[in-house]
Amino acid sequence: MKPFTDLTRLTTPRSIVIVGASERQNSQGRRLTENLMLHSAFTGDIYLVNPGASEILGQPCYPSVAAIPASGLDVALVMVNASLVLPTLEQCAAKDIAYAIVMTSGFAETGDEGAALERQITALCARTGLRVYGPNCPGLVNVNRRLGMTFSPAFKDDLNAGTIGLATQGGGLGRNVLQALAHGNGVGVWYSGGNECDLGLPDFIGHMATDPEVRVIAVLMEGIKDGARLRQALALARENGKPVVILKVGRSEQGVLAAQSHTASIAGSAQINSAVFRQQGCVEVEDLDQLASVAHLLAASRPAADAGLAIFTFSGGTAAMAADIAGAAGLPLAQFSPLTTEALRKLLPSFANIANPLDTTADILRDPDVLTRCLGVVCDDDRVGAVMFPIPMDYGEITATMAQAVCSAARTHNKPVVPVWMSRRMGSGFELMEQAGLMPFFSLTDAVSALRHLFKGETALPVVRSHTHEEPSRSGPVAISESEAKALLREAGIVVPQGALARSEEEAVGIATSIGLPVVMKVASAQIAHKTEAGGVRLNLDSEASVSTAYRDICLSVAAARPDAEIDGVLVEKMFPADGREILVGVHRDAAFGLVLTVGLGGIFVEVLRDLAHRSIPITPRDASAMLRELRGYALLEGVRGQPPADIAALESLLMTVSEFARQQGERLHELDLNPVWVGPVGQGAIPLDALLVLDSTTSIS
Amino acid sequence: MKPFTDLTRLTTPRSIVIVGASERQNSQGRRLTENLMLHSAFTGDIYLVNPGASEILGQPCYPSVAAIPASGLDVALVMVNASLVLPTLEQCAAKDIAYAIVMTSGFAETGDEGAALERQITALCARTGLRVYGPNCPGLVNVNRRLGMTFSPAFKDDLNAGTIGLATQGGGLGRNVLQALAHGNGVGVWYSGGNECDLGLPDFIGHMATDPEVRVIAVLMEGIKDGARLRQALALARENGKPVVILKVGRSEQGVLAAQSHTASIAGSAQINSAVFRQQGCVEVEDLDQLASVAHLLAASRPAADAGLAIFTFSGGTAAMAADIAGAAGLPLAQFSPLTTEALRKLLPSFANIANPLDTTADILRDPDVLTRCLGVVCDDDRVGAVMFPIPMDYGEITATMAQAVCSAARTHNKPVVPVWMSRRMGSGFELMEQAGLMPFFSLTDAVSALRHLFKGETALPVVRSHTHEEPSRSGPVAISESEAKALLREAGIVVPQGALARSEEEAVGIATSIGLPVVMKVASAQIAHKTEAGGVRLNLDSEASVSTAYRDICLSVAAARPDAEIDGVLVEKMFPADGREILVGVHRDAAFGLVLTVGLGGIFVEVLRDLAHRSIPITPRDASAMLRELRGYALLEGVRGQPPADIAALESLLMTVSEFARQQGERLHELDLNPVWVGPVGQGAIPLDALLVLDSTTSIS
Repeated sequence: MKPFTDLTRLTTPRSIVIVGASERQNSQGRRLTENLMLHSAFTGDIYLVNPGASEILGQPCYPSVAAIPASGLDVALVMVNASLVLPTLEQCAAKDIAYAIVMTSGFAETGDEGAALERQITALCARTGLRVYGPNCPGLVNVNRRLGMTFSPAFKDDLNAGTIGLATQGGGLGRNVLQALAHGNGVGVWYSGGNECDLGLPDFIGHMATDPEVRVIAVLMEGIKDGARLRQALALARENGKPVVILKVGRSEQGVLAAQSHTASIAGSAQINSAVFRQQGCVEVEDLDQLASVAHLLAASRPAADAGLAIFTFSGGTAAMAADIAGAAGLPLAQFSPLTTEALRKLLPSFANIANPLDTTADILRDPDVLTRCLGVVCDDDRVGAVMFPIPMDYGEITATMAQAVCSAARTHNKPVVPVWMSRRMGSGFELMEQAGLMPFFSLTDAVSALRHLFKGETALPVVRSHTHEEPSRSGPVAISESEAKALLREAGIVVPQGALARSEEEAVGIATSIGLPVVMKVASAQIAHKTEAGGVRLNLDSEASVSTAYRDICLSVAAARPDAEIDGVLVEKMFPADGREILVGVHRDAAFGLVLTVGLGGIFVEVLRDLAHRSIPITPRDASAMLRELRGYALLEGVRGQPPADIAALESLLMTVSEFARQQGERLHELDLNPVWVGPVGQGAIPLDALLVLDSTTSIS
Repeated sequence: MKPFTDLTRLTTPRSIVIVGASERQNSQGRRLTENLMLHSAFTGDIYLVNPGASEILGQPCYPSVAAIPASGLDVALVMVNASLVLPTLEQCAAKDIAYAIVMTSGFAETGDEGAALERQITALCARTGLRVYGPNCPGLVNVNRRLGMTFSPAFKDDLNAGTIGLATQGGGLGRNVLQALAHGNGVGVWYSGGNECDLGLPDFIGHMATDPEVRVIAVLMEGIKDGARLRQALALARENGKPVVILKVGRSEQGVLAAQSHTASIAGSAQINSAVFRQQGCVEVEDLDQLASVAHLLAASRPAADAGLAIFTFSGGTAAMAADIAGAAGLPLAQFSPLTTEALRKLLPSFANIANPLDTTADILRDPDVLTRCLGVVCDDDRVGAVMFPIPMDYGEITATMAQAVCSAARTHNKPVVPVWMSRRMGSGFELMEQAGLMPFFSLTDAVSALRHLFKGETALPVVRSHTHEEPSRSGPVAISESEAKALLREAGIVVPQGALARSEEEAVGIATSIGLPVVMKVASAQIAHKTEAGGVRLNLDSEASVSTAYRDICLSVAAARPDAEIDGVLVEKMFPADGREILVGVHRDAAFGLVLTVGLGGIFVEVLRDLAHRSIPITPRDASAMLRELRGYALLEGVRGQPPADIAALESLLMTVSEFARQQGERLHELDLNPVWVGPVGQGAIPLDALLVLDSTTSIS
């Protein structure tokens, strides 16, 4: 794996050039210059470039980058007309400047001409070693250093430092996250790479994965330019124990290019993206408010694996509703320890029901001290991983006092205390908790959606080395025959049914008797993908006579249905008993992530319910296990209606072998479809009965 | 159907008695008295009762209800010690007072003793005709009349009148809804019946269904006391074209009593509740904020059936995200008319993309007038049913100006304009829209969840008369034999397989030859519910010899497996071909709603996926059609993998007949399980192959 570039000189530069610095009112150049010179705490060297000015804000101005009397500087901020960007970057490279942040618009986002210009920048980077961030971006904000390399007029308003690192693409919406995290732990650094002609999300994530100031990485993603590199960056973050929270726009788009293969056609790209995020241990959220709130929660201390949620409120109806919504979402509720129960019983009125959800009764509103102590008792319970505190109504003063108690409990306990402000009346109690950085949720549902991610988080796990994902070559894909495909699988250590290719009735009978009846017979032809439809399949042949007849029938049917097809012969194979489950295992090439492994229960589960699980290749044994358990119909493998359990271990092992086989095939593999895979009862294995393999035509298959 | 009581005298009384009026500081009696005498706009007669005072707030006081020099008064507010409630109510009845609102606590909610006291109140109501609201409730608030018959100290703070009627049980949480609807169209009347010993949710909903001041009914429900009556009330609201929005607490509880039958065990009560709400055209929401926001939306004008949502924003990223979230939720996006497109093109910069979602570009922020005009153009498009206006960031002044434009568009167009305030910074723009009653959502997801209900609303539909639901008698349920059950079904007009009961090998062969081979044979015994497990079933018997053998085998197997069971013989029936689908149709008795019809695809769809649909009996043809289409596996009925479509019309007709059969059986029916029902290709019918019928043992079956 190619290591990720250390972006320290970009993020925390010691010298900055502003190309396009300006004093002109309301110009972006002026806002950029002011952000750096007036609103930032930057103490390094600043060089201004503007051919039309000799001085700006009291600082001398150079006519060009070439004229700057220094070299090897860290960052050039480029805010000039699109046509001047390339010459400017040439000068930056000549001056050995390490990074250029190009904010100028008018590139790939405007059409072909702009895209061509952008490709020239990419080529320049490759040629010279200059690294470019942008173009068409709002810049880079290092909040922790109070450094604004951006023309955004809002820079100076959102300066709440913190341990959350943010990476976006489009840019503007990142400000929403900064505003959401304006109190308490904030966004320490915000990357927004715009068109990403050189540096992009994988680089920013990869850098933050090793940046000690970043504890949680929040990502707002619109497109995926290099899926394999993104996967590597996410893997690095996981290795380093940093949660990544992702909001990926495009869940309802039909984003996968239409593909011929069955597997590819049912694997929508949104599903593949989600599967890869899951595979890399990321948390995927569905809305912008969740991106901020989940990052906020994950940056605090994480609950122990066996801890649950405590619900603490003073209203019985609210307690029931909160438990109901948490329960429906599958959130584990903690059972209080006997010590906690005893302590609460002493503090609360006799008619209060001491349980989780805890309804202290409204009695507690009389004495905020009792509230603080009760909350402390609950926080101290090891079985409690986080405390949700729903406040159903705003009662003014009383509620403000209560909010103070919540803030103080949150301050003195190293455990997430999560208030839910359910009223639309944003009273002073709300404001108190907001200012204290507690980030109250606005509804129980929102709180529960976010808390789910806190409780299902996984610990860092060993990671397999990923293969390098390269563009497949341009020559066309070609399906190879079933018997050739099975030979390749057998070489790779995958058990396939005993059998051989017959070219006459006699040969067919000979093969059948040598492998033992009953057998199955299938036409062998690289041109016939759908053998059943062509009349090319006969099952359960249990006598020599039926084998003979089947051979003739197949030849006649296929000749009638597909007179054009070249027939290699008829494949005679061992028939597997009916007590197996039918599973589909497939590999296809995803536009973003390269090779993707898919598994599903056969038949209606795939065709009607689209019950499939995906992982990017290569997979770990844990992935193999997890993807099976994601299937809605997983219980069928465990055995229902008195069926014996299926050989799940063999199926998991098959998934691993197929992943490795696909990885070794690399770029020449277009599609592999094992459908059905016969999975017998425990101990009897998982055997692909049919195999469709589509390889690149330029590579030989032996 | 018993008509619903007109509650006008309760809701808008002309004379009120306060029993337990008080001047004592901080007492509930004082708050009640002050709410009515100082904070209400009540102009009718007030009588105060308190044996310890001669005057309260300048008004004379009577020692008892009996001492009041008037009779036939409308409402008595009862706020006395629990032990005094019953004698007080006796006096109320004697004085011919129409309604008593009992706020006092200490009844069924405290245990057996309180429950006994409460039953005495219920008996008093039945005996005297006095109607009681409560006990253990916060009272009744008629906001539209500014009338507070409640001891809540917050009464005077939540007085925003409107066309939304609210009914709750527990009480306290209703205030959250009042606070949420504090601006614009508010809650006009709030019923909160506490323990509901006499009047309850069905009465309140039934009354609001005919109250001209109520346009939408919002219900916060904890338990269901009388499901049949509730169903009637919901049906009445639908008949009168009033949307009912329900939040039912208890979705994650295992609320159904364990029942022996298969159908009952898989029909959790939360699912049944939801099915009945859907059947009655209600909107079910999942959180308290949605209860308010969906009621708010439904009280405004409804979009035309073919109209879609318009998304209007000034940020490209937000437009994409909003369309994505709306699309994932299945919300229809409007396609702008050519007129709209043309008008927008003239108003917006040339680089703006004129489409839905509409990204006006940030350029529009310069001129609020253009924004107002663009918004007007979109609102005027007939294809647009509602406009969502997401505001991703707060930019202070600029955003406030924009908010003003949104308010003005909402005011001048009879179409929902729905702002989404996505920033956590609650700037003045937010406040402006909130004050204007636009009720901005806090996230795109929340807005989309609510808007979905606006766009999937149905029009009023013909309603069938419901049967009266009565408690089943106490005698035990008894399963009757399959052949008797089938005879009953045949009488009811349900086609069952040809066949007869054989009591010897010879009889079996005779029956088989007379109905034609192949046949199926099943042991007939009322004691054996699971015939297959007992070895009592043989399928596909296609010769006389196999019929003979099967008869012997069944007798031997069953004798070995169930030596205790009484065997009536062996049922010989026509075997149905394998091209049919297997469907489960069942009826069971739900604790809340009485008889419930269930349908599901057989086998794994029921056992693994719990893919079932429910409706309360009786059903309409539309229900029959809708419940099939709710099934995840519905496509299987339409035909997949080259299968011909199933006889869906016959299955729908079977559902109707089963519903009618169950209705006629009435209270003696405990359970009916038709599993499987064979559904053939179109034109070949839907035929129950097996029938398990459990009836009350005290009633004869002939």
